[in-house]
Amino acid sequence: MERIYTPEVAHHVGERVRVAGSLHTLRRLGGINFLVLRDARGTVQVVVDTAEALASLESLLPETVLAVEGLVVAEPQAPGGIEIRAPRFEILSPVRAALPFSLNKPALKASLPVFLDHAVVGLRHVQRRGLFRLSAGIMAGFRATLDGLGFTEIQTPKLVASATESGANVFAVDYFGQRAYLAQSPQFYKQIMVGVFERVYEVGPVFRAEPHDTVRHINEYVSLDAEFGFIRDHRDVMAVASAVMRGILAYLQAHYAAELETLGVTALPVAPAEFPAIYFPDAQELILQRWGEDCRGEPDLAPQHERWLGEWARTEFGSDFLFVTGYPMGKRPFYTHPNPADPAYSNSFDLLFRGTELVTGGQRLHLYQDYLDALARQGVTDLKPFETYLEAFKFGMPPHGGFAIGLERFVMQLLGLDNIRLGTLFPRDLSRLAP
Amino acid sequence: MERIYTPEVAHHVGERVRVAGSLHTLRRLGGINFLVLRDARGTVQVVVDTAEALASLESLLPETVLAVEGLVVAEPQAPGGIEIRAPRFEILSPVRAALPFSLNKPALKASLPVFLDHAVVGLRHVQRRGLFRLSAGIMAGFRATLDGLGFTEIQTPKLVASATESGANVFAVDYFGQRAYLAQSPQFYKQIMVGVFERVYEVGPVFRAEPHDTVRHINEYVSLDAEFGFIRDHRDVMAVASAVMRGILAYLQAHYAAELETLGVTALPVAPAEFPAIYFPDAQELILQRWGEDCRGEPDLAPQHERWLGEWARTEFGSDFLFVTGYPMGKRPFYTHPNPADPAYSNSFDLLFRGTELVTGGQRLHLYQDYLDALARQGVTDLKPFETYLEAFKFGMPPHGGFAIGLERFVMQLLGLDNIRLGTLFPRDLSRLAP
Repeated sequence: MERIYTPEVAHHVGERVRVAGSLHTLRRLGGINFLVLRDARGTVQVVVDTAEALASLESLLPETVLAVEGLVVAEPQAPGGIEIRAPRFEILSPVRAALPFSLNKPALKASLPVFLDHAVVGLRHVQRRGLFRLSAGIMAGFRATLDGLGFTEIQTPKLVASATESGANVFAVDYFGQRAYLAQSPQFYKQIMVGVFERVYEVGPVFRAEPHDTVRHINEYVSLDAEFGFIRDHRDVMAVASAVMRGILAYLQAHYAAELETLGVTALPVAPAEFPAIYFPDAQELILQRWGEDCRGEPDLAPQHERWLGEWARTEFGSDFLFVTGYPMGKRPFYTHPNPADPAYSNSFDLLFRGTELVTGGQRLHLYQDYLDALARQGVTDLKPFETYLEAFKFGMPPHGGFAIGLERFVMQLLGLDNIRLGTLFPRDLSRLAP
Repeated sequence: MERIYTPEVAHHVGERVRVAGSLHTLRRLGGINFLVLRDARGTVQVVVDTAEALASLESLLPETVLAVEGLVVAEPQAPGGIEIRAPRFEILSPVRAALPFSLNKPALKASLPVFLDHAVVGLRHVQRRGLFRLSAGIMAGFRATLDGLGFTEIQTPKLVASATESGANVFAVDYFGQRAYLAQSPQFYKQIMVGVFERVYEVGPVFRAEPHDTVRHINEYVSLDAEFGFIRDHRDVMAVASAVMRGILAYLQAHYAAELETLGVTALPVAPAEFPAIYFPDAQELILQRWGEDCRGEPDLAPQHERWLGEWARTEFGSDFLFVTGYPMGKRPFYTHPNPADPAYSNSFDLLFRGTELVTGGQRLHLYQDYLDALARQGVTDLKPFETYLEAFKFGMPPHGGFAIGLERFVMQLLGLDNIRLGTLFPRDLSRLAP
């Protein structure tokens, strides 16, 4: 008999069906025994109503993998209004050990370290797997939106010859006796590829050797990167970044409603057709006027400043998103394009989502001579490590810009998680390299 | 004026338009000057018919980035039947150096090392960029097919604690003073995730520290991985692998016809609704009968054997694809499921594409005790490095299997490239870490 998934069982009342999955719960209620079977798409209740069937089940532990054949019966008291009776069982994979924590309760009760140690099984919990289904949806929504805007997907190398992008915080690799590094972002390659495809995106791992132990840092994460050419300035980049945000949210709403419900997300973030934006010095002025804190002249915003600005965007514009533009040049990487009218500030932006930075982007320099000048200003005298990057600009690059979104941070902020590790399949941090 | 792409120009005869891109060619023909502008989607001819316009162009070198506004005129002798006249130019990014090789000839003429050294600009050649658009199409076709079959996308860590999968050929990373490794495949993680989502896929980089210098090896490549549960045996895996192949080819045909034409692919591979299959010992017998070479008892097929089998599949079944099943257990990794009826042979397969291996896959062990036995047979006494992997099996895993496709090899074999480096954006090999 062909196996069907549990949500299809209800369409087969009066027929015998075959389902397969994991033993979710087994319980005895007033002399009747119920088995709940969980598969990839849901659960179904099986009534163990013969002595023979009961005998075959009594020693089974949760997570035993089994197939069940039985008769589908409408039963108003059963979850979903149906149950399977007169079952025959086939054990596909026995379990002989007790789980480190229960997987069949609505909420998973385990401390973070215990959960992470046992993520291999912990991820089977319906809330945990729902969360990582949303991650898949975010990636798919990102790609679908950019495909629709004429972008081409690229996959660029993660092993690189030099730590040129920031010069620090990179992992070293022994590469056949040479020293190589793990790419901390696809920044250089995505810019280079603008010269080839004009509009590109990449979804892939990035590696940061930052020795931070915080709830917002992990050392390997998935970066959603986009970069494109023939822009006027950073405002064209902001327009695409906000289209991507709206596209992802619409994608989740269209394809992941069940997962959002499982995770208790009753309303998606408010993402208006045009996201509000505020210029960096104006944001500092606003903070002084509204909250009485004078941060004017500081080169960056503190987390509390971002939270205030997030509140303001929500109150004034009804938006969960707010662009802060024009961060001071001193805090931005060397390839950042200055604001031509106000060169101490940049044509870059952060996108705050509910008062926390989620996306960073901006216009980049595109003229070869500007790169030479910017590197000289940074005190770079040896251009050799930049040789191939600079070659792209030597041979003509259009005005361009782009942005990057951290997948796990998006999940964290969307679901209000208190630790980014809960938004990461198998997180890597200072103390964790496994599972 | 809004910029339009070159293929749209023909829809604007009699109007002034703005196009933007790179200076592809500039030539003087009998007193008339033609500029060909190349953008991401095509080229357009611009007639430089005023002395002023000519003066502004004369010193420009190929790849100069510029915008052109002018009048669209139907001209039967022009490429595509249209050209732009009375142009005004805006130089967006000047070029002052000569290219290492010409980008405006139909075929790119550069030796492989010279091309790879200058890939940053060489990839702009229309044939090269067409090839990497096909790579994007292969990834998209892979995902679309598996999404349609209920698979969930995952992104698993590339930094791992131990070199457990094969014990060799891994790159070591300095991870905050500890030793970590780069994942040589997502094998363990994709199996673990079958316990969570039942059906999973991943598109991402893998790293092989193999010191081989051949036309078919690179040290970092993109692996298209799939794995799924509740299979009968490897035949269910073969069915999905062949559906994926057909899905990718159909996707290319539907969305990448222009690129296939640019690359001279006049006919896509023949991928029948059911791919032919031959059992490993039968393949050896066939080779003896047909080609007189006795390789019976050998543990693997040589490249010439694969080529013969490819010919046979083409002649006997009209198929560019052939499954070889049942490779001897001794040549397969420890997690391979044996053929229950013939335990010296495995429930695994290679998929030959035009006589060369493209896909490897099979049924995996799924019982915890079978893993303990398999590792013991391999002489593994310390189970600690396998602890988290084994935990998935300890807590019940369905019968499952999967397969992996190397993206760059697919491109290489589809296009008949003579070196895999030509199918790789920025290849990494024994001597190459840049660009």
